[in-house]
Amino acid sequence: HRRGGRSSQGHGSGRCSGRESLDKMSQNVLATPRGAEAPSPSVYLSKRGNSIRQHQGTLQEGFVQYAANKYHVTDNPEGIINLGTSENKLCYDLLHARLTRPDMLYVEPSLLQYSDWTGRTFLREEVAKFLTHYCGSPKTLNADNVVVMNGCGSLFSCVAAVICDPKDAILIPTPFYGVITDDVDLYSDVKLFHVHLDCEVTIKDYRAFHLTVEKLEEGLTKAKQEVAVILMNPHNPLAEIYTPEEMIAFLEFAKRNDLHAIVDELYMLTVFDESVTFHSVLSLDSLPDPLRTHVMWGLSKDFAMSGIRAGTLYTENRELVEALAQLGCFHGIPGTVQHQVAQLLQDRAWIDNEFLPENRRRLKAAHSFLTGELRSMGIPFLDRPAALFVWADLREYLQESSFQEELNLWRCFLRHNVLLSCGQAFSCSTPGWFRIVFADQHLHLGGPFMPDVSK
Amino acid sequence: HRRGGRSSQGHGSGRCSGRESLDKMSQNVLATPRGAEAPSPSVYLSKRGNSIRQHQGTLQEGFVQYAANKYHVTDNPEGIINLGTSENKLCYDLLHARLTRPDMLYVEPSLLQYSDWTGRTFLREEVAKFLTHYCGSPKTLNADNVVVMNGCGSLFSCVAAVICDPKDAILIPTPFYGVITDDVDLYSDVKLFHVHLDCEVTIKDYRAFHLTVEKLEEGLTKAKQEVAVILMNPHNPLAEIYTPEEMIAFLEFAKRNDLHAIVDELYMLTVFDESVTFHSVLSLDSLPDPLRTHVMWGLSKDFAMSGIRAGTLYTENRELVEALAQLGCFHGIPGTVQHQVAQLLQDRAWIDNEFLPENRRRLKAAHSFLTGELRSMGIPFLDRPAALFVWADLREYLQESSFQEELNLWRCFLRHNVLLSCGQAFSCSTPGWFRIVFADQHLHLGGPFMPDVSK
Repeated sequence: HRRGGRSSQGHGSGRCSGRESLDKMSQNVLATPRGAEAPSPSVYLSKRGNSIRQHQGTLQEGFVQYAANKYHVTDNPEGIINLGTSENKLCYDLLHARLTRPDMLYVEPSLLQYSDWTGRTFLREEVAKFLTHYCGSPKTLNADNVVVMNGCGSLFSCVAAVICDPKDAILIPTPFYGVITDDVDLYSDVKLFHVHLDCEVTIKDYRAFHLTVEKLEEGLTKAKQEVAVILMNPHNPLAEIYTPEEMIAFLEFAKRNDLHAIVDELYMLTVFDESVTFHSVLSLDSLPDPLRTHVMWGLSKDFAMSGIRAGTLYTENRELVEALAQLGCFHGIPGTVQHQVAQLLQDRAWIDNEFLPENRRRLKAAHSFLTGELRSMGIPFLDRPAALFVWADLREYLQESSFQEELNLWRCFLRHNVLLSCGQAFSCSTPGWFRIVFADQHLHLGGPFMPDVSK
Repeated sequence: HRRGGRSSQGHGSGRCSGRESLDKMSQNVLATPRGAEAPSPSVYLSKRGNSIRQHQGTLQEGFVQYAANKYHVTDNPEGIINLGTSENKLCYDLLHARLTRPDMLYVEPSLLQYSDWTGRTFLREEVAKFLTHYCGSPKTLNADNVVVMNGCGSLFSCVAAVICDPKDAILIPTPFYGVITDDVDLYSDVKLFHVHLDCEVTIKDYRAFHLTVEKLEEGLTKAKQEVAVILMNPHNPLAEIYTPEEMIAFLEFAKRNDLHAIVDELYMLTVFDESVTFHSVLSLDSLPDPLRTHVMWGLSKDFAMSGIRAGTLYTENRELVEALAQLGCFHGIPGTVQHQVAQLLQDRAWIDNEFLPENRRRLKAAHSFLTGELRSMGIPFLDRPAALFVWADLREYLQESSFQEELNLWRCFLRHNVLLSCGQAFSCSTPGWFRIVFADQHLHLGGPFMPDVSK
């Protein structure tokens, strides 16, 4: 029982008020909303190298703390429970059973040799078949339009490098998965231009954080060097599922403005409510601007294996594929793992009869548990039937509406050994929103999951 | 018997004279010494993207042709035999036996999850132990000084990004493994400044392509923004093994000039003559400038698995490690493969009793075969007991001493379905030198290996 354990260790369970937090943490809290203190510049690194080294937000800071002190039921019961990193930890038994079947232990000479940097042909073919089926494409997708790299972060980096010049900008609605900021910036020196979505519901607009074409147009007039727009469906961290009509409108907006549309569909198979259908843009009869539409998918979220490092891009733009092929040498996947991924993707019996139904069942149960807890505590949240997390409104727990206060609350959770992700890490315009990952068995260890910050 | 097959296919075996080559290939040979024709710029890509896409030399052009038409003894006996790419294809049987043992099929939850981007702790520990032993380090090397990424190309890219600013330069003696040019340039916009070594032997200097501190000093006075020097030992493509005294002198040169020394020891375990000992810089009692000395190694060459994508960096500079950790997210290795690599590196019985002795025996035999053929044809070459290739002097076969003629000869080989690497791809200052990979069983199919270009 985590709460008991915590209390008995003298961590206390009293409210982390802004005052208390500031007092206790005055040594290591910066006045700026940044995470841990930046190291001083190194004489051994270039200006760029120092900037890269000093780059650290709370997502990273939290993960580092978690990695050094992971919760384990027997070995480290006082460790950190990670509800901040979007990983699905509910289906390891299913994955272990599949990944240790004999077909996974396969080696042939070519798998140990250099190959095509966009991914081996056999893998690109399986990805094309897989996407054709699970995205409901009206036409058979082409393996030559597939690029496979070691994760979607690599794909974001590469795509930014080849469609943008340094200092160019990409439009993105906020909140959004904050790591994309680093993905397009660290190597490629591309900036994100934020289009802030509003958390407040009005008579005119009943949807919180509602993304509309008007919002995008408005953002575009303020931006300068924008080259592309990033769209996420299902959305991270909102878990919003956009309708085909909405996505078409967004893609038409991109076309009107000669913007590349990078469509991130990483969570497409996480929809856990049977009454809701996700529509991939690859299911459309025709894309408004096929040569500027690039669809990302990967195994990290839908197949719960972020440690395997496999992301895919589908694009009809061969010139883009050629450019990505040049950078692919930095983002290669081991030949043997390419074989394993291909084996997994072609195993429809396992995917359709074992993994997907059971995974959805578990996601749904975990989501129900978390949202039930939130309801019982009176915490508002976006109730969406997809992804691995809930976007929750903890504004009530801030002393004042500021990102410093949000950071204090985030640190308060962390002191109580619960890692969450705060809204600022997703560039949310209003302080007090948190992303809470529910796809973790630890949630069930002893509720309520939240440190008692209400007293 | 390849030669017969070739002739019977009407390829002819007549001499590819410069005249003939130019006539036959006027459609696709550029006046510049570049490889295939550059594609016209894409309106969908940025200036940088177009530059990346158009980036292609003969190393790449040759590999693409080979990949589309690989020689196979029964399935494609008229395919291309690749003696251009430095891969060891002699030990697949040993590798297959090891890589399909049950310990390689291991999955645990953490391997499927996000982790430390410099490599999992268990792997960095095995790498440190491995390097301590095989580099003969007088002290136990520290796992915290190890960074593991998906290949040394990724490490070159990252190190360039964090020790250099865009347009900065790194000093490198030529000839050198040409891909490094792309490794430091494509993402990181860092240029190489060439220090040309001379192929001519003089009374004063009896060693062809002799690297000396004087040469380095001379290069440095001509360079402008140099930040580092790249040293290779054993050298690619010369297969030269430098003595500890030479390496110390080079490292002292780097220290005197505040240059980082990136020491590439990728071929350290390929020395196949028992009478010759390779000395890693990690075997030195002390490094002249430990915080500016960074040693690269990987599995691609020494363990004949370039398709597995695993490269390591050893550096005492923690600030550099911290900066690399930030970029590591783009160069991650699957958790399961990190486990496999760790298993392999800790299996000293297999390495010492099975793989290394047999690999050396086979390398030595293949080297003997190739050099015997070269001798019988009167072709001069550098006779060195290391690496997977021989640096051969084909100047006699050029109509005139020009890189266009060298390219013609390279294309002539390729038309005869033999892929080699020409000196220009290694920035050699004198046309006519070729790198010939001997670590391939195909060499034995029917000698002499060379198309008959002498008649």
